[in-house]
Amino acid sequence: MRDVYVIGAGMTPFGELWNKSIREIFVDAAMLAIEDAGVDHIDSLYVGSMSPGLFVGQEHLGPVVADFLGVTPVPATRVESACASGGVSFRQAFLEVASGVSEIVLAGGVEKMTDGADVTEALATAADQEYEVYHGVTFPGLYAMIARAHMHQFGTTRQQLAEVAVKNHRNGMKNPNAQFRSEITNEQVVKSTMVADPLRLLDCSPVSDGGAGVILASADVAKKMKSRAVKVIASTQASDTIALHDRTDLTTLGAVVRAAEKAYAMAGKKPSDVNLAEVHDCFTIAEIVISEDLGFFEKGKGGEAVEKGLTARECGKIPINSSGGLKSKGHPVGATGIAQIIELYEQLTGRGGERQVKKANIGLAQNMGGSGASCVIHILEAI
Amino acid sequence: MRDVYVIGAGMTPFGELWNKSIREIFVDAAMLAIEDAGVDHIDSLYVGSMSPGLFVGQEHLGPVVADFLGVTPVPATRVESACASGGVSFRQAFLEVASGVSEIVLAGGVEKMTDGADVTEALATAADQEYEVYHGVTFPGLYAMIARAHMHQFGTTRQQLAEVAVKNHRNGMKNPNAQFRSEITNEQVVKSTMVADPLRLLDCSPVSDGGAGVILASADVAKKMKSRAVKVIASTQASDTIALHDRTDLTTLGAVVRAAEKAYAMAGKKPSDVNLAEVHDCFTIAEIVISEDLGFFEKGKGGEAVEKGLTARECGKIPINSSGGLKSKGHPVGATGIAQIIELYEQLTGRGGERQVKKANIGLAQNMGGSGASCVIHILEAI
Repeated sequence: MRDVYVIGAGMTPFGELWNKSIREIFVDAAMLAIEDAGVDHIDSLYVGSMSPGLFVGQEHLGPVVADFLGVTPVPATRVESACASGGVSFRQAFLEVASGVSEIVLAGGVEKMTDGADVTEALATAADQEYEVYHGVTFPGLYAMIARAHMHQFGTTRQQLAEVAVKNHRNGMKNPNAQFRSEITNEQVVKSTMVADPLRLLDCSPVSDGGAGVILASADVAKKMKSRAVKVIASTQASDTIALHDRTDLTTLGAVVRAAEKAYAMAGKKPSDVNLAEVHDCFTIAEIVISEDLGFFEKGKGGEAVEKGLTARECGKIPINSSGGLKSKGHPVGATGIAQIIELYEQLTGRGGERQVKKANIGLAQNMGGSGASCVIHILEAI
Repeated sequence: MRDVYVIGAGMTPFGELWNKSIREIFVDAAMLAIEDAGVDHIDSLYVGSMSPGLFVGQEHLGPVVADFLGVTPVPATRVESACASGGVSFRQAFLEVASGVSEIVLAGGVEKMTDGADVTEALATAADQEYEVYHGVTFPGLYAMIARAHMHQFGTTRQQLAEVAVKNHRNGMKNPNAQFRSEITNEQVVKSTMVADPLRLLDCSPVSDGGAGVILASADVAKKMKSRAVKVIASTQASDTIALHDRTDLTTLGAVVRAAEKAYAMAGKKPSDVNLAEVHDCFTIAEIVISEDLGFFEKGKGGEAVEKGLTARECGKIPINSSGGLKSKGHPVGATGIAQIIELYEQLTGRGGERQVKKANIGLAQNMGGSGASCVIHILEAI
């Protein structure tokens, strides 16, 4: 297997991009990535997108974006794993470069969610349609059950959940591409509108439009632009039961645990070697559970960790979601996994600007689909 | 890049499978493939599916099928390229084994189209939603324009189009998994209901449910079961403009030409080396155009070739669609690309039964999305 590097990245602002269509959003991000990498061509592209069919009536998204980007006849493939579609896009591009088939591959992700589709209904198709959705449950409800179980078993508090949102908004304030660049208080979170007890409005990531792209390349190509190359030292993926009710323990996400084990083994690293992480905080409880399942904290101690500031960007033990995370940066689902990689790439190349993490040599991105039925993990290392 | 082999295959009958859900159909096919290969595990799986979101309200199909197949926590990824989703599934599995990341990968495809969704509307999302579909065109109309252009430029006749359907039904009669196992006559085709002039009902592939799966493996694994292994000697993919009106010539499919050039180069073969081909006959005109673009016949001579029997299974120059093709076998879109590989695998291992092609050492599968905006080609060789 050949070594693979990230050599460029670009993204649109995340938010309500009403004056742009899905293909325009993708191309805006892709052009920024291509310009950042300084390459004059790409060998192929991947686009992660959860449901352009339900959101904007457009399947066959690979050639749609290749055409509009002006890169036909290169292979152009859409991949989907619900909210982990971006992570899967990056992984497939990684495999293609690793195999030797291609030298320079664009891994992108995009979602256009604010064009009028019933977003809750569309997102619910990431759960088990026949055994969950049919009975009326949607994602806030599923994550509320996870939160209840975690609070019951470990004493995680309502205030600790809120601290995740407070921290991520604080980080997002410094991210020019974030959807919500406003500070919020613990009190605002715990008093916001109830969505699915115990989760309130400010526990939930927003509905967003947005696109993101990164350029992956072989060692030969990366060598030519060494100052801006970051090495991909692990790419792993795992699955779990699609329905929450089929799991023996709601307080842990099996696919995260398994993908993490494999990622640390592939990279030859331990959780304590990781300097910063972007994790899938679709709801505040998710970040807490994931921070434990990635091995950063003992099981049950994730709530306490965020409360103590151990995941803060400034001086935490392990800065989590320095980008603002899904909560503040926004969550155009197909783009999210790529945007995580972009945050690591910028931090690892010292281009984090106002939100630069002091020591940033090894970064981990954890992207997840549904209530954890799919999980993709990548570890990147500065060279 | 490592060598990759197909070591097992299985599919459901194609047709109206009203008593099976999408996950059941996939698992039925996957179990047959796993049993055929004789493997006791898989390292990961891919599932090609065009639009489970629009057809049955289920995205995130990777973990859905992995869960029901009982193989979690293996990585499970859905890929989509409209009607080429199955071909892309096979290609991604190929890249994963070629890269060295996995030894045994299941490449599957599935579609459940008869559950009540508006099939024409769902399929139209494979065309350009903003510039084609919005104005009312659907796929029969797009392919009718291609047919008109080909008839005008090369004198291709209405009867020649019909001969494609007649031949493919004759082949499908001998395929126990085919949706339509009935012979039809040229007269029946040309007198069938008009759909989009000049295309009539019997020029069109049907709406189908179905699933298909194959097992890909590395040389080490394949060696252990040499009698049933077939080598993948080319895997290529290309894109073209999503909208038909952006092409300079409607009588040729650019993505097919480009993917074919690359495939022959990768395999070190010429069109005349190919003993049989499965091609994407979504409409009769498609098979004629593709048979030219793959280099089997001179441009403009594809209609004459089918009329002269040069593509017949029994004694043709190059047997095309010995399986019955999409026309007779059925076209559950996500499964089609995998079913093409299955036909080659069975023919190349001498298990073609009643429809065995006499000399079957090298087979080519050509799978296509939309009106040719994406194309995937694989060449397999008996060992």
